[in-house]
Amino acid sequence: MTAPATIRSVEVLDVRFPTSDQLDGSDALHTDPDYSSTYVILRTDRDGLEGHGTTFTIGRGNELCAAAARTLGQRLVGLTLAEIQNDMRTVVRGFTQDSQMRWVGPEKGVVHLATAAVVNALWDLLARAADLPLWRFVCELEPERLVGMLDFSYVTDALTPDEAVAVLRRERPHRDARTAALEEQGYPAYTTSCGWLGYSDERLRELCTAAIDAGWNDFKLKVGVDPTDDDRRCGIVRELIGPDRRLMIDANQRWDVDEAIAAVNALARHDLRWIEEPTSPDDVLGHARVAQSVAPVRVATGEQCQNRVVFKQLMQAGGVHYVQVDACRVGGLNEVLVIMLLARRFGLPVCPHAGGVGLCEYVNHLVMIDFVMLTGSTEDRITEYVSHLDEHFETPARMCGGRYYPPLEPGYGTRLHPASLDEFRFPDGPCWSERLAASSNGHDGGVAR
Amino acid sequence: MTAPATIRSVEVLDVRFPTSDQLDGSDALHTDPDYSSTYVILRTDRDGLEGHGTTFTIGRGNELCAAAARTLGQRLVGLTLAEIQNDMRTVVRGFTQDSQMRWVGPEKGVVHLATAAVVNALWDLLARAADLPLWRFVCELEPERLVGMLDFSYVTDALTPDEAVAVLRRERPHRDARTAALEEQGYPAYTTSCGWLGYSDERLRELCTAAIDAGWNDFKLKVGVDPTDDDRRCGIVRELIGPDRRLMIDANQRWDVDEAIAAVNALARHDLRWIEEPTSPDDVLGHARVAQSVAPVRVATGEQCQNRVVFKQLMQAGGVHYVQVDACRVGGLNEVLVIMLLARRFGLPVCPHAGGVGLCEYVNHLVMIDFVMLTGSTEDRITEYVSHLDEHFETPARMCGGRYYPPLEPGYGTRLHPASLDEFRFPDGPCWSERLAASSNGHDGGVAR
Repeated sequence: MTAPATIRSVEVLDVRFPTSDQLDGSDALHTDPDYSSTYVILRTDRDGLEGHGTTFTIGRGNELCAAAARTLGQRLVGLTLAEIQNDMRTVVRGFTQDSQMRWVGPEKGVVHLATAAVVNALWDLLARAADLPLWRFVCELEPERLVGMLDFSYVTDALTPDEAVAVLRRERPHRDARTAALEEQGYPAYTTSCGWLGYSDERLRELCTAAIDAGWNDFKLKVGVDPTDDDRRCGIVRELIGPDRRLMIDANQRWDVDEAIAAVNALARHDLRWIEEPTSPDDVLGHARVAQSVAPVRVATGEQCQNRVVFKQLMQAGGVHYVQVDACRVGGLNEVLVIMLLARRFGLPVCPHAGGVGLCEYVNHLVMIDFVMLTGSTEDRITEYVSHLDEHFETPARMCGGRYYPPLEPGYGTRLHPASLDEFRFPDGPCWSERLAASSNGHDGGVAR
Repeated sequence: MTAPATIRSVEVLDVRFPTSDQLDGSDALHTDPDYSSTYVILRTDRDGLEGHGTTFTIGRGNELCAAAARTLGQRLVGLTLAEIQNDMRTVVRGFTQDSQMRWVGPEKGVVHLATAAVVNALWDLLARAADLPLWRFVCELEPERLVGMLDFSYVTDALTPDEAVAVLRRERPHRDARTAALEEQGYPAYTTSCGWLGYSDERLRELCTAAIDAGWNDFKLKVGVDPTDDDRRCGIVRELIGPDRRLMIDANQRWDVDEAIAAVNALARHDLRWIEEPTSPDDVLGHARVAQSVAPVRVATGEQCQNRVVFKQLMQAGGVHYVQVDACRVGGLNEVLVIMLLARRFGLPVCPHAGGVGLCEYVNHLVMIDFVMLTGSTEDRITEYVSHLDEHFETPARMCGGRYYPPLEPGYGTRLHPASLDEFRFPDGPCWSERLAASSNGHDGGVAR
């Protein structure tokens, strides 16, 4: 990044896909998701150079994230890329620690999801300016420089910046060999596309069978509404996939702590690798009790864990075995990297959440960074993949044979086709304006009764 | 409440007071607060019957809460008061568990602050329909009925609804005697009005002296930016108030865990009753470590604790001694009552947060409920009082001699004068339109650079 470039404007779009039509993505608590994106475009004065970023939501509420991203994004107008890269920690803390705005967070919910869209757009911009895929751009930063871009506040009791630098230094000599290994073998994934809760048994069987034929070895099933249904569906999948493939279940926070323990133990006969989101994402101590009480089934969580402070505690308390950080929820790449460093410190595998539009594209970069910079291992590491909606991306996640492969194109990978932005813009894109005209009780952006 | 009444419309106003002019309310992280209200008005078809509710914020971001409250409030239009009161748990879960909107929470930040404004407006409406002050309306509900209105999800490992009913039943015989005691003696308060961080030493001395003369016995000082300043300011206050009055300090989340421990121990010689918000409000385990490491100084926290799940854990882990629940942050009165019941279960005093516009008015009701329904004790219980802005309320908190007295007027007490709503409406009220005209770089609702 040598040529000067200054951010001149920020545009934020509210984009929604009507996935609730087919119950794609449905689970115990999110029964009718419309996969959505708070889509941020940073424009510069350098010809054609833009940064695009997205936050994933599931419909109503996306307008709040978009409004917050518009406010936050204005802070960037007038800054050069060099200024941003040289003091990115300050830029990001400008978002998270705004002296008034932090009251309505801090570092959680709407404002933190919005921060992620803007921060990820910034990284996309920096990587494109350097003409590199994001993962490669990050892996080439000097450890001191990268760590200096991150905010370790509230986690230094578990990991200091100096310790983080030391880890990165130690792993650095392996960088090229690990990159070559990824190019050759990719990174293992599993599929959630079969087991959404709204699907019939018949559809579950069909999709499972197709996924086995396509080479998948790890399967995840949504549970949590009815114990009898859960038991039957687990049985169907286990029978189809046989004893050697792996089965995980996901309750999407449906249970209280004691309920979770009873429910998982009742399903354990199906040989489960993990229970995902057994209870409230805010309940660190509850997760720790579940983890102690359902072994050898392990606990996975993270897609709704709000920030590094909660992840730190889950790790300290033994409440998580698989760290499913979300690329959007925790305030963007900077905080994801802190959480990855924490996971490395606690010896826990990072398996990022990818069930949403744009998440697989982000995750494709994140697992490369984790492997190259931090672990060099794929053992017991397996990352979600959901193929819905990948046709809308300019550079969809690079998948082959159930594995993620290193992205080749510059940037962070979540740029949507202009035609998709036009079609699915809410509420004025044709997809939605037609629906709104057809039914004033339908997808109206308000709250269904 | 016998006559039928139906909610016909919801209006939400963004109201902001320019308190940053004087640095009222300034602390280590919130350096320039403009005390603000997301103000909800529920209108009914019964002549003149309205419910008003508010959420407190400190400026930027209030527009997000207002937008969320508008969306949530629409769910109420067409419901009768009887329908709401008969199944309030379902009505409130409609806000917190909306199948799409919960993704941008859940139960935290912007959407939960907005929920509080709407829920509190509902209680104001129910109490006014019954022609009772809110605290009295609540205290007259049968235990089974009241508990049935509350959401115990994610906290049943600490307290079940049946256990809550049993507690309320046990305390019920004392109701009338406790009410009489409150009428006679009030409920103890302390003042934060002296010690905001932006004030000079001279102003600190003046305000402290005036507060002593006015009969206050408990004083709180903001700390956390500079250790030398903190030590000097603590010394000034301790000297003025003498050895018998009590001094508390408040760091407003300024420190990491180990920093907090060192900083509090360095100030302990000033004989401190509590350290408030030593670190991140999300850090349950961090608070527990601080509590263990700074004794006999105790830990107070809660104004930014997002919901009952975090409070439950703080209590389980020994991370809090004084439960400073905020009447707005946790989703409204229903969740405040669950947190009060949890505190009763763990034997911890509830000292609600009141440093904000409208909070003292809410708290005036909350401490009455706590005393009458749950504890009958004022021992080691002391509640914040800040007099800023009370002239804008129709029925400001009922204070006398440093004590809260039972509110007498119907409703939940946060109704602003119409003239105040007009003057301070953002951005179009005269207060703000004049400022915006005077300076395009000033209070513009965007983000200061």
